[in-house]
Amino acid sequence: MPDKEAVVVIVGGGFGGLAAARALRGAPVKVVLIDRVNHHLFQPLLYQVATSVLAPGQIASPIRGILRNNGNTTVILGTVTSIELASRQVFVDTQDRATVPVSYDYLILATGQTHSYFGHDEFEKYAPGLKNLADAVAIRNKILTAFELAEAEEDPARHKDLLTFILVGAGPTGVEMASAIAVMVHSTLKRDFRRVDPASARIVLVDMGPRPLGTFAPELSQAALERLKKLGVEVMLGKGVDSIDDEGVMVAGERIASRTVIWTAGVAPSPAGRWLNAETDRAGRVKIRHDLSVQDHPEIFVVGDTASLEQDGKPLPGVAQVAMQQGRYAGDLIERRVRGKASPRPFRYFDKGNLAVVGKGFAVLQSGKVQMSGFGAWLVWAAIHLQFLAQSSLRVSVFVQWVWTYCTGQRGSRLIVKHHAN
Amino acid sequence: MPDKEAVVVIVGGGFGGLAAARALRGAPVKVVLIDRVNHHLFQPLLYQVATSVLAPGQIASPIRGILRNNGNTTVILGTVTSIELASRQVFVDTQDRATVPVSYDYLILATGQTHSYFGHDEFEKYAPGLKNLADAVAIRNKILTAFELAEAEEDPARHKDLLTFILVGAGPTGVEMASAIAVMVHSTLKRDFRRVDPASARIVLVDMGPRPLGTFAPELSQAALERLKKLGVEVMLGKGVDSIDDEGVMVAGERIASRTVIWTAGVAPSPAGRWLNAETDRAGRVKIRHDLSVQDHPEIFVVGDTASLEQDGKPLPGVAQVAMQQGRYAGDLIERRVRGKASPRPFRYFDKGNLAVVGKGFAVLQSGKVQMSGFGAWLVWAAIHLQFLAQSSLRVSVFVQWVWTYCTGQRGSRLIVKHHAN
Repeated sequence: MPDKEAVVVIVGGGFGGLAAARALRGAPVKVVLIDRVNHHLFQPLLYQVATSVLAPGQIASPIRGILRNNGNTTVILGTVTSIELASRQVFVDTQDRATVPVSYDYLILATGQTHSYFGHDEFEKYAPGLKNLADAVAIRNKILTAFELAEAEEDPARHKDLLTFILVGAGPTGVEMASAIAVMVHSTLKRDFRRVDPASARIVLVDMGPRPLGTFAPELSQAALERLKKLGVEVMLGKGVDSIDDEGVMVAGERIASRTVIWTAGVAPSPAGRWLNAETDRAGRVKIRHDLSVQDHPEIFVVGDTASLEQDGKPLPGVAQVAMQQGRYAGDLIERRVRGKASPRPFRYFDKGNLAVVGKGFAVLQSGKVQMSGFGAWLVWAAIHLQFLAQSSLRVSVFVQWVWTYCTGQRGSRLIVKHHAN
Repeated sequence: MPDKEAVVVIVGGGFGGLAAARALRGAPVKVVLIDRVNHHLFQPLLYQVATSVLAPGQIASPIRGILRNNGNTTVILGTVTSIELASRQVFVDTQDRATVPVSYDYLILATGQTHSYFGHDEFEKYAPGLKNLADAVAIRNKILTAFELAEAEEDPARHKDLLTFILVGAGPTGVEMASAIAVMVHSTLKRDFRRVDPASARIVLVDMGPRPLGTFAPELSQAALERLKKLGVEVMLGKGVDSIDDEGVMVAGERIASRTVIWTAGVAPSPAGRWLNAETDRAGRVKIRHDLSVQDHPEIFVVGDTASLEQDGKPLPGVAQVAMQQGRYAGDLIERRVRGKASPRPFRYFDKGNLAVVGKGFAVLQSGKVQMSGFGAWLVWAAIHLQFLAQSSLRVSVFVQWVWTYCTGQRGSRLIVKHHAN
């Protein structure tokens, strides 16, 4: 063993960063994991917080709690502001003090992505996106407030705009959100209002592409589309959003009045490429080599949504599975290198399949040549998501909540809380 | 039955307002319940949200969900801004439209209280109080962030100020908060940090009075005091806070450096007295008659924390039980009057007793001549609080969380979320 233990700095406590930290658990290194928030977020269920099914605490756990038994790992709450490659230092803003330097021997960047308004940042004010817990709570407030405003309004003519919900982007998040809102208006809210009928709400899902869930097989898109229609969601395909303001959106020349527009369309990578001054792909993701390291920097690895890697001529998708497999690979590689062992074979992603939920008891599933849609796929979805929830206590609590919501239509966290800014 | 149903407007969806709405369930009236938030809050457990044990959704339920089966009740989310006594109208700000008038035949004001800084409103910025869910989340953020800042700080000399927690006011909220923080540093956080020892945190409880829990019997105050000391809480009695700033407090001439000061001292009633232009007591609470109505306005009732009523020469305390009994009384009285029945006997409060928790498995209980302290009182406390939680689904979830926390030391909602202001 070396005189002084090597320091591995991991930036990001998402799926990629956590997998790397776990892989390094037994390694003779000192690990420092830095994240902007104190919790690991189970992002695939974030839409359920936005639609009141789950509470924030049910899909997020403190990172330092998860890594409690990793004795070699220190967790730091802070925002990385820059990286100095020559001196191998990461600069961290810890709220208390402006920039604390953290030295590394190895660096793993697992910084994920944020939403992109494709150059229309002015949309953000009217159409919030869904990336973190604060976003989910803000969208939950927005959706529930729309029904409250309508109920307070005695003039029925004003109800229509208030109860029009527009989702821009028909990827998994848009489809899952739209169908969850549809289920909510027909079950949870059914008997709670006197002046408005929640079921009269108009839910519109807009996308530029020709079909929803564009990354799935066409047959599954078709199944999802039919299910969305059955749930009462209006799906507008091949149409772009020209403008958004506080009274609605303009879609392909048509004005739709709405007070609740939600952005479920674009994603943009973290500033990792800028920090490293490294080559990026068109989307801005850092191009990495097949051992996940950055050109000319064998000590720096980029994993997950903010990395760009092709496999069999196609770029790897920005999904949790890729991040987890890459994080584990980077951690293993570093352990081997520190122990003086041979390098592993180049990284290869093993695709276990993709799933998306479309309302109560319905999902689409694609795994290799297997395609499924319906209740069976939904059961698979539920089982897999429960299994991957980071903490066993969350697993039980989410399972109980799902059974409760499934049977009674009631949701777990239908709160409008006007939080103090902080 | 009259030609046109009488309209009963209830302002406030706390214990008093909900009890009134429930009492009117079978009455031939139209009820309109107005609240600033969409949820009924189970305030006695609010400190458990502030100390990460419970999630906000576990102690709050949508008011319209609770009153779903009250077919005669409409719930409106809005803030009452004024009352016009002559025309019998309440003016409501509903966010969407500035002021919507709501006419009443009977009015029940159950508007509760807020915290008071006894003329030192400048303290609020540094020492937040604990009255609603947003407050609890803000305090939770503040407490958890203190430990994060200390862990990010490599210089141990700076840890002490960061890990000093000061609670101003040793009533039930102060005692419950202080002991909950003490339990947290010795159990939940024990193994999560590498650079700081959470158990080294200094927890200081300050009060002007001679003993904690001043409304309980002296023997119980003594038991609580001993328990607090055993938990490692420093209790400073007979001492006032002279000033608070972002670096600490000045207590009776002594400077205590601290980055986390929490205000658990004073309460002030809602502006109901101002709205009514009615006679108030020294604290600002509306003086009411023994049928809970306001002088010269037999159609207006004030209940709960914002009302002032003496019984056997002593003012009734500002506790949930008084609010619930008064709310029920006001509702019953209105139903009798509408049905042309005789008025009920004057209101009389039946005191079932008081409880306060001091850490894990320890409470003090006072009910008539019965006084208890210890584990037995804590079991009574747990049973009563579970029983009173408004919704059965919350009851199960809180019970499961308590058992989990009791056995493992782990808490349910240890999240720092920087919410968007809205």
